[in-house]
Amino acid sequence: MTLNPADTGFVDHLRALLPADTLRPADPRYLQEPRGRYHGQAGVIALPRSTEEVATLLRAAHAARVPVVPYGGGTGLVGGQIMGAEGPAPLVISLERMTALREVYPQENVIAVEAGMILADVQRAATEAGRLFPLSLAAEGTARIGGTLATNAGGVNVLRYGNARDLCLGLEAVLPNGEIWQGLSRLRKDNTGYDLRNLLIGAEGTLGIITAASLKLSPIPAEEGTAILTVASPAAAIDLLAMARDQLGETISAFELIHRQGLEFLRETLPDLRLPFDDLPDWCVLIDLGLPWGRSPAEALAAVFESALEAGLCADGVIAQSEAQRQALWSVREHIPEGNRRIGSVSSHDISVPISRIPDFIVEGGKRLAALGDMRINCFGHLGDGNLHYNVFPAQGKDRRAYEHLRDDVKRCVHDLTHEYDGSVSAEHGIGRLKVADLQRYGDPVKLAAMQAIKQALDPHGIMNPGAVVPLAD
Amino acid sequence: MTLNPADTGFVDHLRALLPADTLRPADPRYLQEPRGRYHGQAGVIALPRSTEEVATLLRAAHAARVPVVPYGGGTGLVGGQIMGAEGPAPLVISLERMTALREVYPQENVIAVEAGMILADVQRAATEAGRLFPLSLAAEGTARIGGTLATNAGGVNVLRYGNARDLCLGLEAVLPNGEIWQGLSRLRKDNTGYDLRNLLIGAEGTLGIITAASLKLSPIPAEEGTAILTVASPAAAIDLLAMARDQLGETISAFELIHRQGLEFLRETLPDLRLPFDDLPDWCVLIDLGLPWGRSPAEALAAVFESALEAGLCADGVIAQSEAQRQALWSVREHIPEGNRRIGSVSSHDISVPISRIPDFIVEGGKRLAALGDMRINCFGHLGDGNLHYNVFPAQGKDRRAYEHLRDDVKRCVHDLTHEYDGSVSAEHGIGRLKVADLQRYGDPVKLAAMQAIKQALDPHGIMNPGAVVPLAD
Repeated sequence: MTLNPADTGFVDHLRALLPADTLRPADPRYLQEPRGRYHGQAGVIALPRSTEEVATLLRAAHAARVPVVPYGGGTGLVGGQIMGAEGPAPLVISLERMTALREVYPQENVIAVEAGMILADVQRAATEAGRLFPLSLAAEGTARIGGTLATNAGGVNVLRYGNARDLCLGLEAVLPNGEIWQGLSRLRKDNTGYDLRNLLIGAEGTLGIITAASLKLSPIPAEEGTAILTVASPAAAIDLLAMARDQLGETISAFELIHRQGLEFLRETLPDLRLPFDDLPDWCVLIDLGLPWGRSPAEALAAVFESALEAGLCADGVIAQSEAQRQALWSVREHIPEGNRRIGSVSSHDISVPISRIPDFIVEGGKRLAALGDMRINCFGHLGDGNLHYNVFPAQGKDRRAYEHLRDDVKRCVHDLTHEYDGSVSAEHGIGRLKVADLQRYGDPVKLAAMQAIKQALDPHGIMNPGAVVPLAD
Repeated sequence: MTLNPADTGFVDHLRALLPADTLRPADPRYLQEPRGRYHGQAGVIALPRSTEEVATLLRAAHAARVPVVPYGGGTGLVGGQIMGAEGPAPLVISLERMTALREVYPQENVIAVEAGMILADVQRAATEAGRLFPLSLAAEGTARIGGTLATNAGGVNVLRYGNARDLCLGLEAVLPNGEIWQGLSRLRKDNTGYDLRNLLIGAEGTLGIITAASLKLSPIPAEEGTAILTVASPAAAIDLLAMARDQLGETISAFELIHRQGLEFLRETLPDLRLPFDDLPDWCVLIDLGLPWGRSPAEALAAVFESALEAGLCADGVIAQSEAQRQALWSVREHIPEGNRRIGSVSSHDISVPISRIPDFIVEGGKRLAALGDMRINCFGHLGDGNLHYNVFPAQGKDRRAYEHLRDDVKRCVHDLTHEYDGSVSAEHGIGRLKVADLQRYGDPVKLAAMQAIKQALDPHGIMNPGAVVPLAD
């Protein structure tokens, strides 16, 4: 299966089919990604204005066997949006001109948007309709909704509202052969055949291009509250989560684990940031609550705190009594990645393990890494989802360059352990090109074979985002 | 593509591979379905005890090109579990011996069970662990969890907890070639490749056999409450739902629409059943609430009632003040299908339409059916999901036999209208064999082609449940 480059002849052919300004030479910003690991080939960029134009582009690429890279906001962390020198120059299709709000249905708690809409704009449009679109992540000012669906993005509210997959009711998409699937349903119940929607979600642009989506909205909580409670251990944190859920049901919006190491990094690198405790605890959790009217979040959190004290799960805590205090608590959690960045990690990992295995995982991880060398570990993240950011740093006073030779071993050690604990080596960032080898190593072989068969069935020429997710044929 | 029958030679081959009592001649109960529309061929039944035995069966069927019908509880309403005379005698594989509880993880809100476990037993195992498995439907005492997943079953709690798809974290399954996919993950976040889980869910046994599942559990609500409120129209019911959601968030477990016709049928056929109103309202809704501790459901419902009265959405209402009263209100809703059965329908429909279009749909449906003949319509169901049971009955005093000639026209009329309103002609029952032609008529052609390609890729010999969901090749 040989692919052809998006050369002058192909581009001239496209120019004859599309408005004059649809195609442009490669602009460097489409050829870079946030961590600077992948560099795209200078090729051609298409900026379609409609689903029909996307279909025209894919029909032409399908016929000419030209590789296609779908491009959203470019914020992916695993190289899914960058095709390097491993194949012929691709046609990059950016959805940035397809940003229309198709329709809001407040009564139905549904919004339909084009795939190029920025995530923060989707949130804003929901708010203007008196509703909440709960998908929230660091890159929301740049990420586009099509990309967040193609990668099944997560973020801080997954515990309550689910990930991107769970928030999508329907898709409009162009399949690799250039045909348009009109699947922009807004039905909550529809059992009519195979679930093509969930197949495209998380396929990272390898099975088609999402052009529009209908998304679930939620009521805006009437009042929100936040607390940070110290816990003796990750095991105590998990017990506290169960207790809080029994008392507060689905109203817990976030439950984040914070390790002493992260607070120490903040104290060292961001000394002006106010920390909630003078004596730093080994572990603490941030609990965020959104309640319908009729009950005070601070009171509800105080009741949880009291039960946790009685049960010996918790020794100290701070409950926000105002929105300003609430923001201050969140600020601690939100600055942890910045503290990490300033210290400089040896290796970072986006992993998940079954929630009840987290305590053992953390103990065992510490032991195995100590056997490799003297390093500090900041393990924090979305405990309620079993999703840990397990980041490894140089020992105090040492430089990360002294650990270069260890990086691959550290990554392998953490990923092997994750796999042993029935976990995932990509909890929310996806496979892209960075983790294709990991997926082959850790993935179930029967699933991998089924993925290859599905890829071959829907994209027989292999034009869609070659090299991402599914390995290139030899 | 020719399939071969499960003949004596094939059965002898299987007997050599499996324990003696695995295979049995056809027992009539595997060849019938609840509505008596489909009749299976006398064939052979396999009762495997393990996933490995299921794999052995599928490997043999795959090699010999013998059709396979997966069999759960046999409660499906669309003939997905019965292969008639349209092909050679199949191997029926019943999961009834694979009923083990694999593990409960109360801390993680997860239960892992074998596919043959009865749905009510899954609910019970969850309750024993202090948790709720919220999937609940009329057939729960017979339906097996593998079948409810294969058909993506719905029920009364979808509004709050989602359908079967939304409640599944991982699957173990045997693919059509007899290979075992070890996908029994219990991770909440796992972005490692295509979503094979959601592809098998809702595929109705045409892409493989689910042998085990890990399922999401929820906290048991501390207190539950129920009210029935009258509303002037379906439009008012939808406004009331939005208002109730703003006040009560995710704690609304069910929101059911009831039409006067259903209450009249109850009064006529079940005169001892206590109805909540002497003067029957044109429309009313049943609201069910499950709250974490700290607030009385009756008070919360009273507050909604009061707001609804003020807003003119509602004129009268009954709020249960005890569990007995609550059961009495639910009993009205739950007996509506029995009332329908006693009257005897001309045609019944399991449809969904976008929630905000329901009022117009109901008006237009009444007009179009009136043009066909003198009939009564009982339209009720899961309003919060847009899922209506739209059932058509003879005029007062007339016999359904007088409407035989109209049945196909009535069905076509309702399904055409549903399609015009962007709805689904199978909201929760699936396609099976009953609605294959409907899916071809109303389904998106690009999706149908993709389904064929996926079926061909994963089941190249077409052995899995031939004739269900995907049409047989000519």
